[in-house]
Amino acid sequence: MENYLHRANNILARIQELACISEDAHCITRTFGSPAFISGCSRVLSWMQEAGLDARIDNIGNVRGRWNSQQPAAKTLVIASHIDTVRNAGRFDGPLGVIMGIDLIHWLHQEDIQLPFNIELIAFSDEEGVRFHTTYLGSNTVAGSFDISLLQQTDDTGITLRDAIKTIGGDPALLANDAIPAEEWLGYFEIHIEQGPVLYEEQLPVAIVQSIAGQQRVRVKFNGISGHAGTVPMDMRQDALCAAAEFILATERYAAHQKEALLATVGTLQITDAASNVIPGEVTCTLDIRSPEQTVLKKARKSLKEIAAQICDERQLTADWDIIQKTKPVACDTALSHLLAQAVSAAGYNVKNLHSGAGHDAVTIAAVAPVCMLFVRCYKGISHQPLENVEVPDIAAAVKVADHFIHRLTEVYKKR
Amino acid sequence: MENYLHRANNILARIQELACISEDAHCITRTFGSPAFISGCSRVLSWMQEAGLDARIDNIGNVRGRWNSQQPAAKTLVIASHIDTVRNAGRFDGPLGVIMGIDLIHWLHQEDIQLPFNIELIAFSDEEGVRFHTTYLGSNTVAGSFDISLLQQTDDTGITLRDAIKTIGGDPALLANDAIPAEEWLGYFEIHIEQGPVLYEEQLPVAIVQSIAGQQRVRVKFNGISGHAGTVPMDMRQDALCAAAEFILATERYAAHQKEALLATVGTLQITDAASNVIPGEVTCTLDIRSPEQTVLKKARKSLKEIAAQICDERQLTADWDIIQKTKPVACDTALSHLLAQAVSAAGYNVKNLHSGAGHDAVTIAAVAPVCMLFVRCYKGISHQPLENVEVPDIAAAVKVADHFIHRLTEVYKKR
Repeated sequence: MENYLHRANNILARIQELACISEDAHCITRTFGSPAFISGCSRVLSWMQEAGLDARIDNIGNVRGRWNSQQPAAKTLVIASHIDTVRNAGRFDGPLGVIMGIDLIHWLHQEDIQLPFNIELIAFSDEEGVRFHTTYLGSNTVAGSFDISLLQQTDDTGITLRDAIKTIGGDPALLANDAIPAEEWLGYFEIHIEQGPVLYEEQLPVAIVQSIAGQQRVRVKFNGISGHAGTVPMDMRQDALCAAAEFILATERYAAHQKEALLATVGTLQITDAASNVIPGEVTCTLDIRSPEQTVLKKARKSLKEIAAQICDERQLTADWDIIQKTKPVACDTALSHLLAQAVSAAGYNVKNLHSGAGHDAVTIAAVAPVCMLFVRCYKGISHQPLENVEVPDIAAAVKVADHFIHRLTEVYKKR
Repeated sequence: MENYLHRANNILARIQELACISEDAHCITRTFGSPAFISGCSRVLSWMQEAGLDARIDNIGNVRGRWNSQQPAAKTLVIASHIDTVRNAGRFDGPLGVIMGIDLIHWLHQEDIQLPFNIELIAFSDEEGVRFHTTYLGSNTVAGSFDISLLQQTDDTGITLRDAIKTIGGDPALLANDAIPAEEWLGYFEIHIEQGPVLYEEQLPVAIVQSIAGQQRVRVKFNGISGHAGTVPMDMRQDALCAAAEFILATERYAAHQKEALLATVGTLQITDAASNVIPGEVTCTLDIRSPEQTVLKKARKSLKEIAAQICDERQLTADWDIIQKTKPVACDTALSHLLAQAVSAAGYNVKNLHSGAGHDAVTIAAVAPVCMLFVRCYKGISHQPLENVEVPDIAAAVKVADHFIHRLTEVYKKR
């Protein structure tokens, strides 16, 4: 274990080094195409080269290091995560997987191993989607599903994605060349922080991701009648906030009944022309529902819409219901996840399976290749803010598991 | 009745004329001290003079018309309402009572009546408190309760109340001279729109105000823990919005159980750092409670605080509870209200008693004189916006009642 702790400390040092490359002097922000982003890419590129990889930056800004097998017609295992961040980010979301990947390759190289497949290590350029309000630019390019119409999209300062790509040295016309053809994929492996509290609560260092939840987002507007808080009797009111409150609690109850199959959150709520002495007449809120099962997701949306309508009926209000986002669930590959579970066991840890409620690059890659993911415990499940933390022993545990996983995968492919 | 309808039409024409004197070309706004306010005062001053009153504008901008009795040591009946407005106001809130008062005096003058008391008609300069965020500047001055420290208060552009008073031609040093001494008061009579839906629902033109509700305003902050909407299981959440929703519904239920004794409203709600994919960690809302009975009000605040604490206990949150306003209920004078009830009957209408949930200048005057108020039905109870409306037959009904009231009061005082 001592060697793993040593490796974990080196990984943490590099995570810290990358965290210091930021658009903001006081916090971590590294959005797609910014000077800090470009500088971060160079650093990762040089680390990949040091690890013995044949590395380059592709047209969408992904940093890609290649280690080709000597076997003819070998398939490719992609090990990846992302190096862009949200604003005022934590240090681990994304970089952990990339820097652990570099470490993994570095030590494999020391072993002078003969690979039965190619390894491509990728630091995706845009997973968070902060700058252009569209996620997965990097992984969509590698999966061959980049939507060319997005090139017209502008950031908040009016710069198009097309121009941003040119700024980082890419050629928007050559994006298609950066895709890995479907037939070439062996699979996809990503290490990422859990971003949830389950491992922290259950005191486990790692988990295997079974699936990535599908997600639907709905804007719900409750239309009541505003009035003077001092003059309208309680039984004559059509208070839109009371209706929204009933909906919020009904949503919470509905999701709790579905156990682990559903998460439901009302995250925003605005009262139009709010004042402390005015009965709310119009309330707009957002509903976010997530499930690893598409049927659960669809049924939840339908049921919650009916519940909203029923609340409005009883209170003589109306509700507008606008679906603003729909993403289907993605299942991780059974065979790869099984190997990963064996690796977890071999490393000496309990096998814990989790659904990922957060989206990941594996969502886009799953369209062309089998995917698997390893989650690492983070402090109290906190992510997307400076308190995000992963402890060194947990990084060491994940290193050990990843080592076992790659060796097992090598064994499996040698036998074929 | 035809004469009353004729008078009502004239009253409506003047209300319309005053409504056109506005700070805003597209809606009615006439806040304390603005050019539109000054212009509105001049118009009201000339109408008072036309009605035969000895009229002037006092140091706080109240327009005051005096008709003195020839009896020595006669007391003074004040008939009043206000002519300042909220922003984007309706036409009737305030002006109805002032212009009806002018009409009342005008017709009393035609009768060549001998008054056993003085009448002072006042158009208060600031009831809404829009500009300096403090209400009742006009009536506090007349009641002798003007708080001199308010002169330092500034509006949103940094102008002090002291300078605003000078702009309208007043002398801040002489405000105390504008008070009517306590021993001089006979009583106070105000006509105002209901601002609530009770008369509209019950199809009655007028009501007698029994009391003006006391009011308490509380800022309640629910402190939970924010988290990723996709990763924190339902049973591990400390969602501040769910806690707030429970409090909102508990408040509604509590008030509904108190019947007419209590109104309770959550009018504002903010989620700190809200996002559709983030579990709300901090929610701040305001609670407005009103009751004609001080004991009900105090008990409600205590009970609702306990309910909030209980909700937080069950959900493992905390709540901050800050009282930001407290006004005691004010009872209208029994004798004057009894005369007003007789006038309503004599005019041919059902006697309806109402509590006022909205504040009025009568609140400050009640400290020095017996007060009574007549409410007039308004369309659906709507006020403080352009749809605010009073129909001509209801104005006529109120004119008839006011006529009867003054005549009855005259009879009563002649006998003394």
